[in-house]
Order: sequence, then C-alpha cells, then structure tokens
Amino acid sequence: MTTIAFIGLGIMGSPMAVHLQQAGFDVVGYNPTPSRTEALVAAGGRAAGSTAEAVEGADVVAIMVPDSPDVAQVLREDGVFEKAAPGTLVIDFSSIRPDVSAELAAEARERGLRMLDAPVSGGEPGAVDATLSIMVGGDAEDVEAARGIFEAVGRTIVHVGPHGAGQTVKAANQLIVAVNIEALAEAIVFLQAYGVDLDAAVEVLGGGLAGSAVLDQKARKMLDHDFDPGFRIDLHHKDLGIVTSAAREAGVAIPAAAVVAQLMGSARANGDGGLDHSALYRGVARLSGIHHQR
Amino acid sequence: MTTIAFIGLGIMGSPMAVHLQQAGFDVVGYNPTPSRTEALVAAGGRAAGSTAEAVEGADVVAIMVPDSPDVAQVLREDGVFEKAAPGTLVIDFSSIRPDVSAELAAEARERGLRMLDAPVSGGEPGAVDATLSIMVGGDAEDVEAARGIFEAVGRTIVHVGPHGAGQTVKAANQLIVAVNIEALAEAIVFLQAYGVDLDAAVEVLGGGLAGSAVLDQKARKMLDHDFDPGFRIDLHHKDLGIVTSAAREAGVAIPAAAVVAQLMGSARANGDGGLDHSALYRGVARLSGIHHQR
Repeated sequence: MTTIAFIGLGIMGSPMAVHLQQAGFDVVGYNPTPSRTEALVAAGGRAAGSTAEAVEGADVVAIMVPDSPDVAQVLREDGVFEKAAPGTLVIDFSSIRPDVSAELAAEARERGLRMLDAPVSGGEPGAVDATLSIMVGGDAEDVEAARGIFEAVGRTIVHVGPHGAGQTVKAANQLIVAVNIEALAEAIVFLQAYGVDLDAAVEVLGGGLAGSAVLDQKARKMLDHDFDPGFRIDLHHKDLGIVTSAAREAGVAIPAAAVVAQLMGSARANGDGGLDHSALYRGVARLSGIHHQR
Repeated sequence: MTTIAFIGLGIMGSPMAVHLQQAGFDVVGYNPTPSRTEALVAAGGRAAGSTAEAVEGADVVAIMVPDSPDVAQVLREDGVFEKAAPGTLVIDFSSIRPDVSAELAAEARERGLRMLDAPVSGGEPGAVDATLSIMVGGDAEDVEAARGIFEAVGRTIVHVGPHGAGQTVKAANQLIVAVNIEALAEAIVFLQAYGVDLDAAVEVLGGGLAGSAVLDQKARKMLDHDFDPGFRIDLHHKDLGIVTSAAREAGVAIPAAAVVAQLMGSARANGDGGLDHSALYRGVARLSGIHHQR
C-alpha cells in the first residue's frame, strides 16, 4: 500500500487527505494545530506529531500550505529533505512563486527526490467534492506516477509543462479571476447607481459574452453583500504579489491586473482581508462614496 | 398584418429584418447603401428609398444604427418623428448613450409615439441565429406589445427598467466583456513568456473560476493570432466611451474599466480598430516588447 505523508490539513488539505485515505491510500497527516488531524483520523488515517515523523517511511509527501516560505520550511527546516527516502515523490499542492517552486524542485532532485508542483483551482467546494482542477508542472513520468493521487482529489488534471509551470498557470488563473471579479463589481455598482432591475440585469448579462464562472458564483454575493469566504482577499493578495512579480521578471506588462492588484491591497488595507474576494465590490463602492456596513 | 419599418440593415440589422419578415411581419427596410436591402427583399420584404418612405404606414419602427447621433438623426432629421403615426412603437436596437436614449424617448412621447431601447448582445452569430440577448428599457405594456418582435430575433429577452435602462445594462455588458478580454490577453501573454503548454493551460483555466464565455470564444483567436471580426475594436471603443461617461456622471469609479478603455483606445491608435476586440492581445504583446505581424 502506498503511504502518503500529508503536510498541511487546512481548509483545502483536510478534505484532500480524507479523499486520499478513502481512495485506499495510507495517509499520515501533520498539522501544527493538532485538532486539524481529526477528520483524517476519523476516516481511518493516522496523525503524526511532526513533519519529520509523518515523512519517515512515506512513499509520497503531499504538501498544502499557504505560501512560498511555508513550502520551503516544510522541505528544509521541518525535515522532508532530510527524512524522505531516495526516490520519494513530493507533490506540492500549494500556490507559490513559480521561481521558488522550480528552485525547490531542483534542490529536491539533488537530494534524489522527485517533485511536482500541482496547485489547484476550485476552492473549498472543489476540495470537499474532489472536483479540483490541478495544474501540474514537472516530469511526465512523475505526473503519470501521481495520477491515482490526483484522480482521488480532482477532476481536471492537466500537465502544463516543466517544474514551476503549474504555478505559472495558477498565477494566470488568479490574474483572470481577480480581474473578472473587479469587472463584475464595477458593473454592478454602475447598475445600482442607475437603479436598473439588478436580478434582471444579471440574468441577461449571464446569457451573453459577459457570462462567466465569476458572474455565476459571485454576482449573488455582491447583490446580497454576503462576503463570507470562500477564498479570502488575504490569499488572493498573496497570489497577485506572485503574479505581478513573475510578470515583471518576464518583462510582461499586465496593466489591468496591476490595477486590480492595487485594489486588492486596498481592500486588505480597509480591513476586508478576511472576506471573500468578491468583496472587491466593497472597494468599488467605497471609491464611489458608498459605504456599506459589514 | 403588422408593418415594421426597419432602419439600418447592417451586419446586425439585415439578418434581424429577415427573421422578422420570416416570422410573418411585413417588413419595409431602408439603408443608405441600397444593396444592403437585398437579403430582406429576397426573403419577401420590401425596400424603401428613404427613412421617411419606410415609416409611412408602418405600425412599428425598428432602428439598428451605430451610435447616438445616428439614432437622433434617424428620429429627427430623417423623418421618424415627422412621419410616424400617433401611437407608433419605436424600438431602438442600437447601442447608444443611456441619457440620449432616455431623452429621445421623452421626445417621442411628446409626439405621441411609444419608444423602447432594446440593445442586443450576441453579435453577428446571435443576429444570424436569432439567439440575441435583448436588454429592454421602457414601459411594461410596450415591452409586452413588442414581445412577438423580440422573440423573432432573440432568445433571452429581459425588461430591465425604464427608458434608457436597456442601454445602461448594455454599457455594463460592454464593460465586463472588455475587461474580461484584457484579463485573458494579459494571462496568455504571461503564459507564453514562461513557455507553458498553452492548449493545456487554456483547458485547465476554462474548468475553474477563470472560465468564461470570453475564454471559450476568444482564447483560440489569441493563440492563433486570428483577429478577424467578430466585434470590432472601433465599436467597443465607442461603447467604452459611453461606459466611462455614464459612470462619471453617476459618480461611480470604474478603475479597471478605465484602464481597459485606455488600452482599447491605444489599440485603435495602433491601427487595430478594424480587428476583433480580442486584438487587445496585440496591445499587451506590444507593451511587452513583442511585435506580431498583422
């Protein structure tokens, strides 16, 4: 039986680890907050007291943590590089900087490990329903070796290129999502200012070229001022930092995304970091002199 | 039998007039370029030599011309206000300024006419297939009276508010479409700079929250550098002028759309006005030092 050490059992990692256990893998989970291992243990998995303990004897190490420094710490300080047996497959599901991801993959290779970057899209519902889209970067034979694991947690699994390419596509994903949310927010505040029938407007907009997953999933939240996350402004702000930095290094101009990155930062500065990213709507309202209660 | 005078038989107006004739209406068409009446006449309709001639004896006047001054001219100088019988229903399918639309509707009412603004979304394919989305502003009883006409040319027909509200929703539609296209263009140039597998990337992006009608319809055009219109930059530039002006008058800030309006203008200044609006991609490439041949 394949043993998977799963590091990081947060909102995304916990249901993913449970799905892997239920799919017949032997999953050993670790999270700094021990109570986060409960769902995995209830599903028949095991809890470890540290990353190093989880990794000992594992065939695969899966990582789902918030940011680039977190992944580096799990691999370096917390013991994956030290404790993982040669040939171990390390799958990083986190969304981090493509350059850091490629650098860590090179370091893993030097230590005889195989690494894949495999950031996901679909959010908490996608993790809970095992319908995530997975953007995979790395060597083709490692992608094939990991396919059973990906299929246990996701639906759309696409190998997009070498190490770091998964992160690059995830960055592009976050660029599009942020800008599409801002466009919808500006359109809705505009329509509200003119007093048109908003339900009717959203219906007709969704039927044409303005239709999108963002409109389907976020228009209602904006109309109801319901900004429970979902995906938090704080995390999307982190992701837009990755996007703008990666674009800058590649010499690519992203004028609309750069403006939206500023607006995402402004949302955070106004105390909205813990709200769903559809709360970009609140920023457009503020800029337009409309101040809603939280 | 209801007689419809159809003024403006361009790319959109011509197939719409044909559908109305085929649905059992008696359609009299006028276009400054007489050859544009041929499709209507072939379908059993009639050609008039002027707007005034078309309007005489018509129960309904339909208008589909490019811009606000064109609609004003058709109504005022060209003779609709003068020749139309009291009680005539005037349906303006054009996309124009909401304030001009409301003003013209008030003027029509003073002259005993009933007016609806009914801009459409769906482009040439929507006009040819009679699957347009129609955003209608005006009085509810006039919308009901026009329903048979709308159903002959469209699929999603929504009454969104009073006179001008249809134009306001169309403006919001054009805002969202332009910004979503720019987001996609920035994402694709970014992905190209990093050399990821673009077909794979577009597939996985389309499966998640980044998915949209714009991605479905425009990503392939960007990857193939196929910018045949479709909907021309020139027209979208006109629409973004309407959006930015209407937002400004309402005191609504639209920072992302304002940037995209600038980029649309830049595309035009660079000679891309006759290309499909997906040619915003060419602008992002230019800003990034990448110069494609037309």
